[in-house]
Amino acid sequence: MLAASERLAPIIGPTPLLRSRALDARVGGRIFLKAECLQYTGSFKFRGAYNRLVQLDEQERAAGVVAFSSGNHAQGVAAAAALLGMKSVIVMPRDAPAAKIDATRGYGAEVVLYDRWTESREGISAAIAAERGAVLVPPFDDPRIIAGQGTTGLELARQAERFGEELDAAYVPASGGGLIAGVALALAEDSPGTAVYVAEPAGFDDYGRSLEAGHRVENATGISSICDALLSPTPGEITFEVNSRLLAGGVTVSDDEVRRAVAYAARTLKLVVEPGGAVALAALLAGKIDARGKAVALVLSGGNIDPALLADCIGAYPEP
Amino acid sequence: MLAASERLAPIIGPTPLLRSRALDARVGGRIFLKAECLQYTGSFKFRGAYNRLVQLDEQERAAGVVAFSSGNHAQGVAAAAALLGMKSVIVMPRDAPAAKIDATRGYGAEVVLYDRWTESREGISAAIAAERGAVLVPPFDDPRIIAGQGTTGLELARQAERFGEELDAAYVPASGGGLIAGVALALAEDSPGTAVYVAEPAGFDDYGRSLEAGHRVENATGISSICDALLSPTPGEITFEVNSRLLAGGVTVSDDEVRRAVAYAARTLKLVVEPGGAVALAALLAGKIDARGKAVALVLSGGNIDPALLADCIGAYPEP
Repeated sequence: MLAASERLAPIIGPTPLLRSRALDARVGGRIFLKAECLQYTGSFKFRGAYNRLVQLDEQERAAGVVAFSSGNHAQGVAAAAALLGMKSVIVMPRDAPAAKIDATRGYGAEVVLYDRWTESREGISAAIAAERGAVLVPPFDDPRIIAGQGTTGLELARQAERFGEELDAAYVPASGGGLIAGVALALAEDSPGTAVYVAEPAGFDDYGRSLEAGHRVENATGISSICDALLSPTPGEITFEVNSRLLAGGVTVSDDEVRRAVAYAARTLKLVVEPGGAVALAALLAGKIDARGKAVALVLSGGNIDPALLADCIGAYPEP
Repeated sequence: MLAASERLAPIIGPTPLLRSRALDARVGGRIFLKAECLQYTGSFKFRGAYNRLVQLDEQERAAGVVAFSSGNHAQGVAAAAALLGMKSVIVMPRDAPAAKIDATRGYGAEVVLYDRWTESREGISAAIAAERGAVLVPPFDDPRIIAGQGTTGLELARQAERFGEELDAAYVPASGGGLIAGVALALAEDSPGTAVYVAEPAGFDDYGRSLEAGHRVENATGISSICDALLSPTPGEITFEVNSRLLAGGVTVSDDEVRRAVAYAARTLKLVVEPGGAVALAALLAGKIDARGKAVALVLSGGNIDPALLADCIGAYPEP
């Protein structure tokens, strides 16, 4: 993971670890916000994508990469590929947020849209990869992707130390679990007293339930969530292997709690956070995290929200 | 100013100096965003207010303070007073953004509303000060206020250095000119090669015109601007004394350019910036700052925007 950190250092600086006196006063604890919404491409995903792509050999680089993603991994891979002078094809669901599709194209990727309900993204991606000889970049279940995302945790430990704090707990959003696996690995090494919890949307709490069950379980089908970035049906194999050893538990939040958190972030924290990036904050604001007297880190994992939805959340919850 | 910095250090950390690859690519330069929107109370104003209030003696503290402000100085003074266990009365225009009035009350201040067109805020404030023996905290024309705001510039110089940069230019919003005077003083000492420019809304470019005239001029009456934080009719006496020696010039922006900048900040930078805080960014995005090949700092001086206006700006400019 230190190697990933060295690869990323010339490209992106650390994202800030922010404090908010208003938030501290509200919950009675010392809250540290790891603002990955301020990361290049608007989410932590650039870290893992770049760390994967920069390790491809010349022949692989020439053939380009392919990835499937609802939007944040898409942007991370597209931007990393552009920086490294590679072609990228991104397979995205037709109902992904328009802002994410536009941004992915903006980084120079070729976007192939598919129907989430009738087509297989894995099938389409595999066909493209085979046809062009392109390398498939998985969204989370890859040690180099996990190491890249884990640099978030390295920074977190170092920055908390600079505040003179040892974190009691860290809450991290999870879909496939690459970010939280990386963060948990980093903190296990650099801040072993920190308990790491997963934050998930209700109905997509496969990680929390898998931790309880001791094996990977799936989400029910036919449900929906405002958290478009967190809709993976089940934990990754490698990520679950890591997370089942290292995580302390999980919290879940409703769409309404997430919308309130998005509004709170904009109104009080002055940060634009997307629904999936706001689940840990939503849990704190909803009283599902007891932060009283504690030092607690929340990862705000992304900020790629459709402008209309942001306006809608702010309009629905204009008051503190 | 170093003394101000030491007084503030136990209370607030430095605000981050942010980079954006997207913004750099757009303008062809290296842009450094001093994110005072992430400051406690949502603007730089807390710095000066706290630095002033913490220097009051015990008798003065017991009598409390009074200030007039359209919103950001109000919140700064109210929050600083609360931290120091003092009472505060804030005289605010009835048409100030509701978010600012609510937040000022939220910090524990007594808010007295007045009519901007028919009543004198100076008169009302002086009467309250006389009646209660309270100290009037001026918004900008006070060396201790200027020194407090100037800590923004100390941080900026130090942070740019950490990026390995000497800034070619810094653009700073101005109303009465306390922030820019402090920043200019700090940079003159710590980064003498940096040219400091004032950014103002069209019609309220009293600073830019005063610099050209060589003496303080006033804005025409009866005009309006979306930048509620930047409506001072003329530069401060002390601030102009400083700024007329140190500033390199000024830029002005229209309300429409400011609205685009507010939308850009939310959509691309993931930051909530209020209109008055976005004037320097607006000038850059409108092509009024030539940043090609240069290292340019922009101060995003505040983020206290009414949620409805934020939603409105985002809705009006959903595209890059």
